[in-house]
Amino acid sequence: MNRDELAKAVRQELPKNRWEHTLRVVDTALELADRYGADAEKADRAALLHDFCKYWSRERMEAIIRRGGPPQDLLQHNLQLWHAFVGAEVVQEQFGITDSEILDAIRYHTSGRPHMSLLDKVIFLADYIEPGRRFPGISEVRELAREDLDKAVLKSLENTLIFLIQRGHKVYPLTMAARNDMVDRVRRPSSKEESS
Amino acid sequence: MNRDELAKAVRQELPKNRWEHTLRVVDTALELADRYGADAEKADRAALLHDFCKYWSRERMEAIIRRGGPPQDLLQHNLQLWHAFVGAEVVQEQFGITDSEILDAIRYHTSGRPHMSLLDKVIFLADYIEPGRRFPGISEVRELAREDLDKAVLKSLENTLIFLIQRGHKVYPLTMAARNDMVDRVRRPSSKEESS
Repeated sequence: MNRDELAKAVRQELPKNRWEHTLRVVDTALELADRYGADAEKADRAALLHDFCKYWSRERMEAIIRRGGPPQDLLQHNLQLWHAFVGAEVVQEQFGITDSEILDAIRYHTSGRPHMSLLDKVIFLADYIEPGRRFPGISEVRELAREDLDKAVLKSLENTLIFLIQRGHKVYPLTMAARNDMVDRVRRPSSKEESS
Repeated sequence: MNRDELAKAVRQELPKNRWEHTLRVVDTALELADRYGADAEKADRAALLHDFCKYWSRERMEAIIRRGGPPQDLLQHNLQLWHAFVGAEVVQEQFGITDSEILDAIRYHTSGRPHMSLLDKVIFLADYIEPGRRFPGISEVRELAREDLDKAVLKSLENTLIFLIQRGHKVYPLTMAARNDMVDRVRRPSSKEESS
């Protein structure tokens, strides 16, 4: 399936505003890929496909989770996380995408994970900072994204964690683990001490 | 060892201000035990002993962690967590405390854990709200502590998580798990939906 056919398939799954979001994530991902040396074609594919299952019903996503590919503890956590893990399964089966970097970038674009790959970070951050987003603190993340990919990902993970906690939502453990891991990475060059 | 002897042993391990904190935690734990029906004697013992190892050196605590009783991942996390897990080991060996409720309340008084026992909650909260504490948001937690133990523990876990994230500290996964578990407990009666 070529790029135009993929784009058409994605467009059919999404309402207009989410399709426009997807196009902005593609553009932002390509900018970040260029700035930080990620593979542009993989960034384009992962960005194009990242929300493929975003508007699937709970039942349809749950059926795919229960087949056993995605982690089963998703079922005890926020529905908003599901489409990423389900999407990685579906684009593999439906479009024959087998590149594990692309699949992982789709899979972890909402939760993050420890040891995020360069492409994971590009897609995670592009989804967070694309020009249509309005989050508290986003201008700081956009500035960081021009200077330091890890610091920008860390800040967006932290903003997300604090938002979820303040709103009374549970936090998927992988997101906390992603943030802890990024704290270690960002801190390592200066070997700053952790203890308070 | 009787209560006076235990108190004397604790007092010898702590600087004056931390000993006074301990006395206030004892008083607060007894109030909470009375209000929520926890065993007063166990609350007294756990509160008295909760900070026994607080001023031990990193090396001395690390030696006890490396023997294998406490979780080894503590060594990758904040030093502030260690004294609780080490304390549970030490009071068992040094004073022959074998009551698992008391030992667990000491062990989890800083991190929390999922499925906290009544005594766990009493000690965790007493340590957080004793009258000498000055944290942002503490008056709200003190009010909640008069009405609903779970809600008060949840709020103090959330305040702690946000504080740690904002200060750039890593978060021990058990603390996030404790908070997720408490979200489920506090929410269960009204069966409010999680998804945003």
